[in-house]
Amino acid sequence: MLKLERAKVFRDPIYGYITIEYELFLKLIDTYEFQRLRRIRQLSGVSMVFQTAEHSRFTHSLGAYELARQCLIQVEGLAEALTEYEQLIFLASAMLHDIGHGPYSHAFEHVMKVSHEQMSINLILGDTEINKRLKDIPGMAEDIANVIGHKGKYPLIESLVSSQLDVDRMDYLSRDAYFTGAAYGNIDYRRILRSMKVIDNKIVCRASGVNSLESYIMARYHMYWQVYYHKKAHAYDLLLQSIYHRIYDLAENDIKVDASCEELVSVMKDTNDLSSYVLLDDSYVNGLIKQLTKSSDLILRDLALSFEKRSLFTPLEIDSEKASFVARTIYDKMNPKYRPYYYFSTSVRQTAYLHSDQSLNYDINDIKILDENNQIQSLEDYSPIIKGLILSGQKEIKRIFYKEPLCMVK
Amino acid sequence: MLKLERAKVFRDPIYGYITIEYELFLKLIDTYEFQRLRRIRQLSGVSMVFQTAEHSRFTHSLGAYELARQCLIQVEGLAEALTEYEQLIFLASAMLHDIGHGPYSHAFEHVMKVSHEQMSINLILGDTEINKRLKDIPGMAEDIANVIGHKGKYPLIESLVSSQLDVDRMDYLSRDAYFTGAAYGNIDYRRILRSMKVIDNKIVCRASGVNSLESYIMARYHMYWQVYYHKKAHAYDLLLQSIYHRIYDLAENDIKVDASCEELVSVMKDTNDLSSYVLLDDSYVNGLIKQLTKSSDLILRDLALSFEKRSLFTPLEIDSEKASFVARTIYDKMNPKYRPYYYFSTSVRQTAYLHSDQSLNYDINDIKILDENNQIQSLEDYSPIIKGLILSGQKEIKRIFYKEPLCMVK
Amino acid sequence: MLKLERAKVFRDPIYGYITIEYELFLKLIDTYEFQRLRRIRQLSGVSMVFQTAEHSRFTHSLGAYELARQCLIQVEGLAEALTEYEQLIFLASAMLHDIGHGPYSHAFEHVMKVSHEQMSINLILGDTEINKRLKDIPGMAEDIANVIGHKGKYPLIESLVSSQLDVDRMDYLSRDAYFTGAAYGNIDYRRILRSMKVIDNKIVCRASGVNSLESYIMARYHMYWQVYYHKKAHAYDLLLQSIYHRIYDLAENDIKVDASCEELVSVMKDTNDLSSYVLLDDSYVNGLIKQLTKSSDLILRDLALSFEKRSLFTPLEIDSEKASFVARTIYDKMNPKYRPYYYFSTSVRQTAYLHSDQSLNYDINDIKILDENNQIQSLEDYSPIIKGLILSGQKEIKRIFYKEPLCMVK
Amino acid sequence: MLKLERAKVFRDPIYGYITIEYELFLKLIDTYEFQRLRRIRQLSGVSMVFQTAEHSRFTHSLGAYELARQCLIQVEGLAEALTEYEQLIFLASAMLHDIGHGPYSHAFEHVMKVSHEQMSINLILGDTEINKRLKDIPGMAEDIANVIGHKGKYPLIESLVSSQLDVDRMDYLSRDAYFTGAAYGNIDYRRILRSMKVIDNKIVCRASGVNSLESYIMARYHMYWQVYYHKKAHAYDLLLQSIYHRIYDLAENDIKVDASCEELVSVMKDTNDLSSYVLLDDSYVNGLIKQLTKSSDLILRDLALSFEKRSLFTPLEIDSEKASFVARTIYDKMNPKYRPYYYFSTSVRQTAYLHSDQSLNYDINDIKILDENNQIQSLEDYSPIIKGLILSGQKEIKRIFYKEPLCMVK
Repeated sequence: MLKLERAKVFRDPIYGYITIEYELFLKLIDTYEFQRLRRIRQLSGVSMVFQTAEHSRFTHSLGAYELARQCLIQVEGLAEALTEYEQLIFLASAMLHDIGHGPYSHAFEHVMKVSHEQMSINLILGDTEINKRLKDIPGMAEDIANVIGHKGKYPLIESLVSSQLDVDRMDYLSRDAYFTGAAYGNIDYRRILRSMKVIDNKIVCRASGVNSLESYIMARYHMYWQVYYHKKAHAYDLLLQSIYHRIYDLAENDIKVDASCEELVSVMKDTNDLSSYVLLDDSYVNGLIKQLTKSSDLILRDLALSFEKRSLFTPLEIDSEKASFVARTIYDKMNPKYRPYYYFSTSVRQTAYLHSDQSLNYDINDIKILDENNQIQSLEDYSPIIKGLILSGQKEIKRIFYKEPLCMVK
Repeated sequence: MLKLERAKVFRDPIYGYITIEYELFLKLIDTYEFQRLRRIRQLSGVSMVFQTAEHSRFTHSLGAYELARQCLIQVEGLAEALTEYEQLIFLASAMLHDIGHGPYSHAFEHVMKVSHEQMSINLILGDTEINKRLKDIPGMAEDIANVIGHKGKYPLIESLVSSQLDVDRMDYLSRDAYFTGAAYGNIDYRRILRSMKVIDNKIVCRASGVNSLESYIMARYHMYWQVYYHKKAHAYDLLLQSIYHRIYDLAENDIKVDASCEELVSVMKDTNDLSSYVLLDDSYVNGLIKQLTKSSDLILRDLALSFEKRSLFTPLEIDSEKASFVARTIYDKMNPKYRPYYYFSTSVRQTAYLHSDQSLNYDINDIKILDENNQIQSLEDYSPIIKGLILSGQKEIKRIFYKEPLCMVK
Repeated sequence: MLKLERAKVFRDPIYGYITIEYELFLKLIDTYEFQRLRRIRQLSGVSMVFQTAEHSRFTHSLGAYELARQCLIQVEGLAEALTEYEQLIFLASAMLHDIGHGPYSHAFEHVMKVSHEQMSINLILGDTEINKRLKDIPGMAEDIANVIGHKGKYPLIESLVSSQLDVDRMDYLSRDAYFTGAAYGNIDYRRILRSMKVIDNKIVCRASGVNSLESYIMARYHMYWQVYYHKKAHAYDLLLQSIYHRIYDLAENDIKVDASCEELVSVMKDTNDLSSYVLLDDSYVNGLIKQLTKSSDLILRDLALSFEKRSLFTPLEIDSEKASFVARTIYDKMNPKYRPYYYFSTSVRQTAYLHSDQSLNYDINDIKILDENNQIQSLEDYSPIIKGLILSGQKEIKRIFYKEPLCMVK
Repeated sequence: MLKLERAKVFRDPIYGYITIEYELFLKLIDTYEFQRLRRIRQLSGVSMVFQTAEHSRFTHSLGAYELARQCLIQVEGLAEALTEYEQLIFLASAMLHDIGHGPYSHAFEHVMKVSHEQMSINLILGDTEINKRLKDIPGMAEDIANVIGHKGKYPLIESLVSSQLDVDRMDYLSRDAYFTGAAYGNIDYRRILRSMKVIDNKIVCRASGVNSLESYIMARYHMYWQVYYHKKAHAYDLLLQSIYHRIYDLAENDIKVDASCEELVSVMKDTNDLSSYVLLDDSYVNGLIKQLTKSSDLILRDLALSFEKRSLFTPLEIDSEKASFVARTIYDKMNPKYRPYYYFSTSVRQTAYLHSDQSLNYDINDIKILDENNQIQSLEDYSPIIKGLILSGQKEIKRIFYKEPLCMVK
């Protein structure tokens, strides 16, 4: 496990520096697949509303890695609980957890029916530069794929990489808040890390850190409603989704799209076509859409023009009988062949805090508190605030989005 | 209403600048009573735990003023709803609302049975420099006293100076967070102000600002539990309270305290002795305590020595039968004549959000939301988060604090 | 001049909010040409070194506008010195000053021999959406072009839009520092604005603001050396320049590039082809380079592959006889036909502060100080620090960059 | 060297946390002498101008300690160059370097003719709680005194505790900027620490950190002129100086001051009277001044009243013949017996950067740069900016301060 003689650092506004201590990570960063994340924005359509949120998945991936590194320093008992090899697995999983993201990822996943986690695993195990670098240490690629796929081999590492309180979420909340300029995501990650402790190979948080956890959970909640679920950003992502969807439908029917998008179509037919997949990024899609504004397929042309002119779908919140009626009327009046691309019935929901439910035998995500008497409780039992948030139930907003196809108007 | 030709500014880390546009406010700042706030720390015992929280009530008072000034610029319809005279009343009330604070104020109020609001009113109406400055504009002193005393003459101004969402709270939460270094109090006052609107002479908040309000309410909640109610800070304030208490008891019994504290004793006998009251500040009390370490009254000497050596009362949380039993034993074993000074049964409680209660006919404090359909609702009806917080009920912690008198030990 | 009933705001991490008060600016923002700036990164190659510097020219343009707006509020005498029409000219010039930037702008300008200011003017006066919006107010497009082109019609506005102390520089220094995470660009724009005053239709700064100015000048200096002139960023920009250069040379010789780049080639032949120009952005160039990795032109293919693999030119600092000798040897050994694309003799220089020089009859840029005796002096006469910086002379670093063409190696 | 099982932390807005790893430091913090620093403001009169600058020497002392701790982690080769014992010496010297400060320290030192460094040494070696705690480790008290007194036993530690680039300055610049709200002191201590390296038992800075150093030196320069040397703050400190001076003169002449100030007078007669010295703090002096407003000594009474009413000395900048003449006239007209207390001819000067001067055989303070060719140069040779600052010479402002004694007016 070659340590660098002198650590290499990258400037970062969230942590001051990202510090790289092992050569392995420099090599991973240098791969084609990881560099590609520079060209995929972290927040897709959100930057149409919060215009400064132009940061990429590249910087978030480095951030998650750095936070993992700080866990090893700050979380009591963590470094001791892991061998050096396992520490590398932890750091690498944090760095690579988003490697499988495609351009405008949510729209992409929706049409492709494959999760970005699965794509991450494919890229880690497939014929890629990443895989070549990892192979230097036998078993490493498989073990990282295990962690990202939640296979249970390294439960402690899994819980730190992906749970309700993990390095992924802590980094993206801080980072997205910084780059949007929102005041909500300001979480006190240092205090959270300091309150964490490994007991019986599990992460627990000392009671002294409960306020920071409550704050973190609220920050997450607010970022979802204020930023990630913003109506306009949502409408923008749906437009992308329609474009993907139409290309997919044409491809299914063996109709050639009159624009250069072989790689995209190839991936749509086989998500294991990694060499095509890694060529997809925001530039690819933006470039394609520009071509599509001249497409002979009227729907594609219309969607592409809408994208270029930022003529987004209209949102309608379904919060009353009357609104439902209006929605139904819009639906009914729309030509059925346009509906899949121009009418969306959606629902955004967010529970401030997920708690385990015995009846569902579901508990991996629960945050555990080590109370003043050294007993372990669930966060919701310890914190009346969290209990209250659970009682408040899930907030859900039903929205439809729709649009008259432009090209059909005249 | 003399406007300055060029506004005068004071640097401030929270707002960048405090801006003074009227000569009146320069004169008020220059009074003896206002300058005295420089010598009274905002957070009394808290600085024994959060050592950087050494800021004074002076800077908070300027901050509350500045936030009031920004309300006049940002809150839709506010400047229009107030005459220039009323705007000055608003600004001056914000600036002077804490003018009546004494040194280690909570301990002081507890022993004196007079609120600092009442003392503020006394100082504004009494024979003081403040009063002289205000008299230049007939009726102004009385109107400000009215606002601070919640007499109902200017309900709109009152609600902005003191309610659940006012310039006082918004400033102190931001400021205390900045100076303690806590990450909790980071409230988005700009967004809150921008969401506010005057309708029917009342403040309502647009639905678009609800996230900021939820965040603000959580910030407040966390500041209370994490900072203001910190056990050690609490113990420290109780020590001051015992010292005040003992001096008071001696004075009641016409026993002269062998240290220079005529002004304090005089105020204890008559809270209308303003010329003595304004001489009291942190220095006065600290200097007095230093003298008391040599007092012939053994209790005073012991308390003063405890203060100097930071030998605080021991806290015990009463969260179980067993703890109650221990508390009773401590109480029983303590010599009754020491109990008033060395044993405290306390309780800190905080409701995340107070809501109006029809049965109590209590609603002045309710935050009102202007929803998407232009209807006014209460915040708790609009926000499931706030509803959840109300359901979570009041958090209350019962603590006893006690201490063996040092001087009695041997 | 239609004012909006309620100002519209955009979140911004530097100023809190960007505030739009006139409908005109919403319309300008909505044009195709302005939206295109979202797809052109502010700092081109710099994000290869400071990976979080991924922000676009769009956000900087909004920032420059906002700072102009704040000037109208803060700078004494400015609002009074300008008619409402002129205020709009000022704001619009700030917003549009960078509208003419192309993708990887410096490389672009170098090859095209046309400045981005000229392109801005072309876009403002040409057949564009921008021009259509501006035409609503007769003369406005021409007047803005006048300001951006420094024609002298509105010298006061010109000096605020482009000089040594202007809203462009103040915004980009603050913004680039925020997004890189560098600590240098932290300038106190509020204090600078407050110190400014209009006298005889010129901007002067009160002596009380000189420290802020010195700080600003140092911040600028450090941002140049630490960020903008970073060796690796420079090498990256040169790679782009070579790609542009090669395409240009092929086009000159009527050799068709085997990739879709008609718009780029068309612009290279005629920079007045605005309808092609506005199609160029980072995506366009990145997409093109991806295609060029398969080009039959070996040089283009090699350069494109170098770009994709981040195999940059090697820098060599020419700071000694020996280094010069090494440089000459590299030059001599390189096949002359590759030299234009693979060997660069460059020099970066930066004077901390430019001062007017009588002999050159050059003084537009001088910062003027209003001293304690109400006399106007030049900044360098007033500030010994600035005098010292001028005495320290221009810092200049000569570097060569070179690279063995990959495809030639075997 | 007892390490704590779990490090104890204090919140701090500059570093996030102050971390204590050894029991020794908890004990030192707990001493009477160290706690006393809570009652001595870091910036004396500055808080009369920058009203939020109310922080104490206590928090700065903890900050200097923390920065020393971070040096041991970040500075390459430092931890290796020091034994564990020497590391403790370093940390303790940073923590205790200001322990000898008195209330309104500069005024105090001026009258007493004893430096605070000497008082620090006295307290460390004398009969104090500090000394008792240090004695647990033989030789430690003496070695710390050695470092603070620059005796040359530990030159590497000395240079980090007190030089042109030390933990004292780096902490106070950052801290004073934070608490004043000034934008100047924002130094990048992390980058500076990372650029430092121990070579031949001396600190050098890598060339890559030169920009941070230039920035630091400018920040220091601006903090001096903008904050520390502010005219009003200066006038305030002189008032204190006159009060000390008058008490001293009376004591010299065996005239009893009619107020309780035995400890002060005793210290004035013998600065080795440590048990009196440690009783002096801001409260002591403020309380004393309040008493002196009724003194029978007219001068003391007048000065005390001036202090209470903030009726400061008038400053006059001596920047012209005319000003000199005015100053002389004021001097001549003033009754000679008042002059020592009411007329001051002062000069503030600050060189942006001190460089060694062969002729003076003075070089301890020079900052050394490790250049790209691994050669060590002085900072001024490496950096044209610093060279320019040196050429700009020393900025010096001559001011007189004066005041008509109030009591004499009628």
